[in-house]
Amino acid sequence: MPQNSKWKEVGIQTPSKEYPVFLGKGTVEQLPNLLRSFENTPTKVLIVTDDCVAKLYLAKVKSSLEQQSFTVHSFELPNGEGAKSFENYYAIQTFALENGLDRRSAIIALGGGVVGDIAGFVASTYMRGIKFIQIPTTLLAHDSAVGGKVAINHSLGKNMIGSFYQPEAVIYDVDFLKSLPEKEMRSGFAEVVKHSLIWDKDFYHWIKGSINNINDLTEDRLLVCLENGIKIKAEVVSSDEKETGLRAILNFGHTLGHALEAAYGYGKMTHGDAVALGMLFATRLSEKLNPDLLLADELKAAWEHYGFPTQIQPSVTPENLLGWMKKDKKTQDNHIHMVLIRSVGNVELHSVSDELILETLKEFY
Amino acid sequence: MPQNSKWKEVGIQTPSKEYPVFLGKGTVEQLPNLLRSFENTPTKVLIVTDDCVAKLYLAKVKSSLEQQSFTVHSFELPNGEGAKSFENYYAIQTFALENGLDRRSAIIALGGGVVGDIAGFVASTYMRGIKFIQIPTTLLAHDSAVGGKVAINHSLGKNMIGSFYQPEAVIYDVDFLKSLPEKEMRSGFAEVVKHSLIWDKDFYHWIKGSINNINDLTEDRLLVCLENGIKIKAEVVSSDEKETGLRAILNFGHTLGHALEAAYGYGKMTHGDAVALGMLFATRLSEKLNPDLLLADELKAAWEHYGFPTQIQPSVTPENLLGWMKKDKKTQDNHIHMVLIRSVGNVELHSVSDELILETLKEFY
Repeated sequence: MPQNSKWKEVGIQTPSKEYPVFLGKGTVEQLPNLLRSFENTPTKVLIVTDDCVAKLYLAKVKSSLEQQSFTVHSFELPNGEGAKSFENYYAIQTFALENGLDRRSAIIALGGGVVGDIAGFVASTYMRGIKFIQIPTTLLAHDSAVGGKVAINHSLGKNMIGSFYQPEAVIYDVDFLKSLPEKEMRSGFAEVVKHSLIWDKDFYHWIKGSINNINDLTEDRLLVCLENGIKIKAEVVSSDEKETGLRAILNFGHTLGHALEAAYGYGKMTHGDAVALGMLFATRLSEKLNPDLLLADELKAAWEHYGFPTQIQPSVTPENLLGWMKKDKKTQDNHIHMVLIRSVGNVELHSVSDELILETLKEFY
Repeated sequence: MPQNSKWKEVGIQTPSKEYPVFLGKGTVEQLPNLLRSFENTPTKVLIVTDDCVAKLYLAKVKSSLEQQSFTVHSFELPNGEGAKSFENYYAIQTFALENGLDRRSAIIALGGGVVGDIAGFVASTYMRGIKFIQIPTTLLAHDSAVGGKVAINHSLGKNMIGSFYQPEAVIYDVDFLKSLPEKEMRSGFAEVVKHSLIWDKDFYHWIKGSINNINDLTEDRLLVCLENGIKIKAEVVSSDEKETGLRAILNFGHTLGHALEAAYGYGKMTHGDAVALGMLFATRLSEKLNPDLLLADELKAAWEHYGFPTQIQPSVTPENLLGWMKKDKKTQDNHIHMVLIRSVGNVELHSVSDELILETLKEFY
């Protein structure tokens, strides 16, 4: 891809592959050039998207490819987590076969995390794996688009069927974020804050000084958030592609976060809101083990400015949440393992007793 | 796994992984020790098998694990290619989730190529990939169990959805081959002969001198066939895990072979018989380009002793077969690419004209 001063390129290195993330304004215009730069130019391209994103951006992306003589097909999923189903997985495979996609074809995921997850899983298994490009259209996708985790849901659990499969490239065009509702922007911003808390004190202080509420996320600041968030995710993932060790720290805030999403009922609380409350909980709990931390009150004040929740709804009991937390993939022999914070930029995995969890949860009502 | 003079160990090296094939009599007894030798002993084990194999060997394998305190579940597929369906893929995932298999669990494929393909694809995608062990029970599986190609069928094509996923180990116990019907033995033997023809002149001459008909495949000779067949497959695969170059030579005999299977109707002709006839065709065609080869008549005589077909049924026309051959994954821009033979042990990929294919096909009626 030709360099351009308006764009940044962040390199992602994993044991199985190296690939670039192109970040900036108008980066999507370079998609045809990117496809041509592959050793084998894709014979056919399948864009997987959802009906909301399609209305806004599909025609633009499709015509930019067709003008350069690519054969383009598109498949629209319904918007929302429910789209990551087995039925849709099969339907996309059928559509690809019916339209003659072969081993040299490419799949483009145009959308948020849901679209990236299912389109990536199709790409990883269609004829045993074809090329895959991510074009994220949400801030939250800065997290999911890096790291190669792709999956669909099973009725017995989220993301239960999937692969580790890296894209050829991620094209992040901030123009696509303009239409994002505040709720979605806030959800993605929670993961940005998480990346700063687990890895980079300076970035955390920049956020604290520059972003007082969600409306402060102007284009320039968004680019700083994306670049730093992606770099941190990339550094963690490069050292642990298959999630056997270090990568667990990315779960900061997620042990309670996932439990909240499940206990409230999926879709009731955004992922970011759940993770934000989970981070506040993990910080409060960390402070009990290390009273010098002095971070929880600061986060609570910031959360109130950002509009993140700081309390748990009374309809969900601490015991109920504890039950959900035990279903976490990090649980071993019925003991919950949580990512705790030692100081800003410095976290680690700890076994935490049920008693301490319940006691701390009770302070959130 | 402890060494034993009765067993051979063949190491398989691929860019993504190294793993052993244990070969001999009674090797399956060491399955519990093998599982214990893993860095994380599997919490639970799921044996995937088919109803025919289950009757003969499931109880034995299951109890050997249960005696060593493993929690074992088993899932029986119907026998036959039809089992490699989306429905069964989903059903095995559901069964695994219902029985609490986690990321540290292992899946064992006990059966032939069909069982290995679908069980391996489940293992490659269950929670983004869990451990997988192959216990082949057919001679044909010496081919499919090495190389990491796993897949299921789509109604629009065989093996269209799958992964490249290497097992932790392959345990080949020749005792499991005793009950194999002659038809199945012959089908597997075709791939053994293929491996000799594409790679190893000495092995080909050993086969020519030692095996005059299928009944000559005594236990000792079977072991020689398996060891050499597996070594050749492993050498080809190690240099080309993802089938981008050299690995194509394993398709010797398969361009017409797959076309015959499809044109006759799947299940009408064994895979081995189809490949054997395909190899004879490829050799005849090679001889037209290189009259010094002098191999086709020798093969034809051998095929008659082995019981392989040497003629195409009149119900299937050359034009019909040509159409099927064009659907081969090696076809590019409507030109058929076939693996041709230069001399025994020496093959290469060639573009072949439709005229030459039709002319040669007509000699097989």
